[in-house]
Amino acid sequence: MPKQGLFVTLEGGEGVGKSTLAANLKARAGTAGFTVYLTREPGGTPAAEHIRDVVLRVPDTDPLSPASQALLMNAARADHFEKVITPALQRGELVICDRFADSTRVYQGVGGGMSSEDISALERISFDSKHPALTLILDAAPATLLERRQSRDGATAPDAFEARDLAFHERVRTGFLDIAEQEPNRCIVLDALMPAESLADAAWQLILDRAGSGT
Amino acid sequence: MPKQGLFVTLEGGEGVGKSTLAANLKARAGTAGFTVYLTREPGGTPAAEHIRDVVLRVPDTDPLSPASQALLMNAARADHFEKVITPALQRGELVICDRFADSTRVYQGVGGGMSSEDISALERISFDSKHPALTLILDAAPATLLERRQSRDGATAPDAFEARDLAFHERVRTGFLDIAEQEPNRCIVLDALMPAESLADAAWQLILDRAGSGT
Repeated sequence: MPKQGLFVTLEGGEGVGKSTLAANLKARAGTAGFTVYLTREPGGTPAAEHIRDVVLRVPDTDPLSPASQALLMNAARADHFEKVITPALQRGELVICDRFADSTRVYQGVGGGMSSEDISALERISFDSKHPALTLILDAAPATLLERRQSRDGATAPDAFEARDLAFHERVRTGFLDIAEQEPNRCIVLDALMPAESLADAAWQLILDRAGSGT
Repeated sequence: MPKQGLFVTLEGGEGVGKSTLAANLKARAGTAGFTVYLTREPGGTPAAEHIRDVVLRVPDTDPLSPASQALLMNAARADHFEKVITPALQRGELVICDRFADSTRVYQGVGGGMSSEDISALERISFDSKHPALTLILDAAPATLLERRQSRDGATAPDAFEARDLAFHERVRTGFLDIAEQEPNRCIVLDALMPAESLADAAWQLILDRAGSGT
């Protein structure tokens, strides 16, 4: 592990398995003797959790604009980055964060129509554009994810994933893949449909490689 | 009143009498037959009031950074501007708002050290930099305000005003005066130590003049 720690983020659309991967990576890190700090966004500090509550309490009938959402997400991110992520990195830890700035780029940028100029300004203001050393993007076709979920859960009420149409999830998927293409040094795309243990093995090897390269 | 309404903001440091002036202006507007919408920041919509609560719940021992504060204030402002201020202006109303973007410039910019580039980006993102037609800045020497308050209230426990040192209030005062100097068409400085009724008369005349000029 580099002395200055290693900042890794997990990104991708809804239902691709980010939390499962995060838990599996934490187990591997523990076995390997790394100190790992697992966190998620929005949230991670008391104020950021309160902000998360504000976002969740907004009624569907009176939604926040994409700009207001992005400002809130970045207010939470600024607090999280300053008080949790930066100190953990300074202690030399491996920080794994479930969602970070790429989710804002995709959901409020691609999905909400915010300009990349505005999104970049928010990244500068909230975390001084100090992007992760490594971002693992979990990717799968939304239609396949939906089928898999339906065959696993049976015919149940639509969940958060199904509540929005497939076209939206396709746009989200393309948004993440575009980021990976624009920043190939930082981002690696992984097949979210791999068996969970194989996916975690592959992701862990990528983290070890990045830790070894000292960046 | 111009067809597109008139957006007026009241600004200035703590204890200069903005709320009293707002109430007095509302009375004069009513007498003159204007439809007036009185509002304040942070707040003004359900989500913005929740955001205000987040700011108030943050413990003094673990404060938000100026950047995080400015992001939160602008998230609330974006919601307030979109859902309350803009519709009221479209109905042709006189909107009087107690604090707006200049307070962020002064408290998080001058007071918190945020760059004017970052502050401008937030103004663009949250309200498309659509500044008020008229901003009335209530101005007084902090030391005089403090004396007046102490002689009125007797020797009581320090309030929000006194909790911070005079040097801070001097910086805030200078911050507002600098904005007035930079934007003389939008901003007019009023002596906050005038008798309340005289101050309201002067302010109301300025609003009438601005309404008549149709800008």
